[in-house]
Amino acid sequence: MTRHHRQERHQALCEEIEKNPFLTDEELAKHFGVSVSTIRLDRTNLGIPELRERTRVVAHEAYDTLKSLGEQEIIGLLTELNVGDSGRSQLLIEDTMVLSKAKVARGHHLFAQANSLAIALVDAEIAVTGSVDLKFLRPAHFGETVIAEGKVVKRKKNKYWVDITAHVNQEKVLIGHWVVFAFDTEITL
Amino acid sequence: MTRHHRQERHQALCEEIEKNPFLTDEELAKHFGVSVSTIRLDRTNLGIPELRERTRVVAHEAYDTLKSLGEQEIIGLLTELNVGDSGRSQLLIEDTMVLSKAKVARGHHLFAQANSLAIALVDAEIAVTGSVDLKFLRPAHFGETVIAEGKVVKRKKNKYWVDITAHVNQEKVLIGHWVVFAFDTEITL
Repeated sequence: MTRHHRQERHQALCEEIEKNPFLTDEELAKHFGVSVSTIRLDRTNLGIPELRERTRVVAHEAYDTLKSLGEQEIIGLLTELNVGDSGRSQLLIEDTMVLSKAKVARGHHLFAQANSLAIALVDAEIAVTGSVDLKFLRPAHFGETVIAEGKVVKRKKNKYWVDITAHVNQEKVLIGHWVVFAFDTEITL
Repeated sequence: MTRHHRQERHQALCEEIEKNPFLTDEELAKHFGVSVSTIRLDRTNLGIPELRERTRVVAHEAYDTLKSLGEQEIIGLLTELNVGDSGRSQLLIEDTMVLSKAKVARGHHLFAQANSLAIALVDAEIAVTGSVDLKFLRPAHFGETVIAEGKVVKRKKNKYWVDITAHVNQEKVLIGHWVVFAFDTEITL
């Protein structure tokens, strides 16, 4: 590989990681058609930290803006959060989350990820789910990472309409409409 | 208290426990306006086992009919199950299930109870949730027991429509419509 190729790859690598900071070295190696150790060397040369550190930094910023939930209450890893507007989280499907017979993620784990993201989007100290209309479009399997994206599509006083879409790679796993109610003080529910 | 009163109470106690085997001695004492130790004595005289044993027996029968889920996969305690028709489960809201700020059960625990009941109702080895349309009507608080009741309202080939209602005492906590798909073999999902 020539120096020219390497420079091009370095630039492309920076762009890829900027677009998606959660790509593993393995995924990057596959994308660029090089070995994992080449990617590691590239990252070292470019000063790009390893995945765990990148995740920590990005997640830290997202968690800092969290208002309606405690940090431990988000199901999955919150990777982006613009309260009142949009957010994103990711959930790795572990073996404890799959049905023993079908080997696919149980519905309530996917629901939990989506529901906690919907609540996190609400700009209030307390938020509770009012109603949900959702479809499961494709099962999520053990080892897959489910990315959930949420968007506040409408707000009227303390009532929020939130759309959530979850996908694995480019395939939709879940789509749903949430209605969430915000409360600013410790009201009697 | 006269012997007559005691006999009447004994009969009424049997009827109450037959209607709802999950009543605690405290609830029965309150219902009959007597002390908890009186209820315990009544039960001993009548040969009615304590709550834990009654629960074990009833649940055992329900779990025996379970087909689409493993025993550990039901969220809550399955207390009645007529596969393909109807079922009931109960979930005690523990402190790990409540939101730290609102002190009410997190939506995904109630969803998990209802969703696993919907799946348990399907007469197949494997069942997955297709879509859900649900409303949360009243929060469930720490210490409350949520009773979920499910009913298969329609079935067309491998597609089941299941209605779930969950309540605390007589107050509805959640109502929802589930569409669940049944698969009889280990298909590729």
